[in-house]
Amino acid sequence: MFEHVEGEPVLVLSEDRCWALLEGVAHGRLVTVVGGRADIFPINCAVADRRIVLRTAPGSKLAEMAVNESVLFEADGILSDQAWSVVVRGTAARLETSADREAAEALQIKPWVPTVKDYFVRITPQEISGRHFRFGEHPERELGEGSEGG
Amino acid sequence: MFEHVEGEPVLVLSEDRCWALLEGVAHGRLVTVVGGRADIFPINCAVADRRIVLRTAPGSKLAEMAVNESVLFEADGILSDQAWSVVVRGTAARLETSADREAAEALQIKPWVPTVKDYFVRITPQEISGRHFRFGEHPERELGEGSEGG
Repeated sequence: MFEHVEGEPVLVLSEDRCWALLEGVAHGRLVTVVGGRADIFPINCAVADRRIVLRTAPGSKLAEMAVNESVLFEADGILSDQAWSVVVRGTAARLETSADREAAEALQIKPWVPTVKDYFVRITPQEISGRHFRFGEHPERELGEGSEGG
Repeated sequence: MFEHVEGEPVLVLSEDRCWALLEGVAHGRLVTVVGGRADIFPINCAVADRRIVLRTAPGSKLAEMAVNESVLFEADGILSDQAWSVVVRGTAARLETSADREAAEALQIKPWVPTVKDYFVRITPQEISGRHFRFGEHPERELGEGSEGG
């Protein structure tokens, strides 16, 4: 499924591949920045039509996205012999119209906890990037060697 | 192991519990901010003496931490019926002395890929916070209801 160039442990993923991976995720991490200070939140989400939708209760996530709509979303998948990570840079907006909210409800985002989360937020992507890692041993170096970097 | 107050799906974790969880992780996510713009990177790491140590190759992570040493680290664990997430806000510094580098080598951080990663970075924490989630169904609401928040 992930065709690395022979011997290359890192594969840069195409945009299509990134979205295909995100369509399978139910949680990720949201990064907000206010006044130069970042915050990171674990979130439950769904991905549809190349938008990320999250459901949230009132709180710091919503407040910070209202101040600065530029956010990051990260999701990853880690197995014993491989891993992938996809990062989306985008713009967050609260869904206000009933049509938007109904479409978001239909995604059936499964929250981790049964508190009422009344707000839907949609992240519209500006950039997406992803990498797939095939695990291997770290090439040990002799002490004192080490000019060519890696 | 996680003693929630009866009926409470979210448990705020003590500092000791947060560190105990982090001591078991081998990867997490690093958030850097430069010029008000955040980046997030999956990282391999180890936790010792309440410091997070990561091993990295030259690149944007190192460059961004040199510009702004204030970083976030997040790790989480997600099972079918529960999840936890711990966030550390701290200060990143490259390890320069041979004593520091040898101590970091001894942590045997397992990188995902066998490229040479010559730099160690240690995150000294200023704040740590964590939550444990016990999963449950979302309490459905009647349409039109919805004043008391959640």
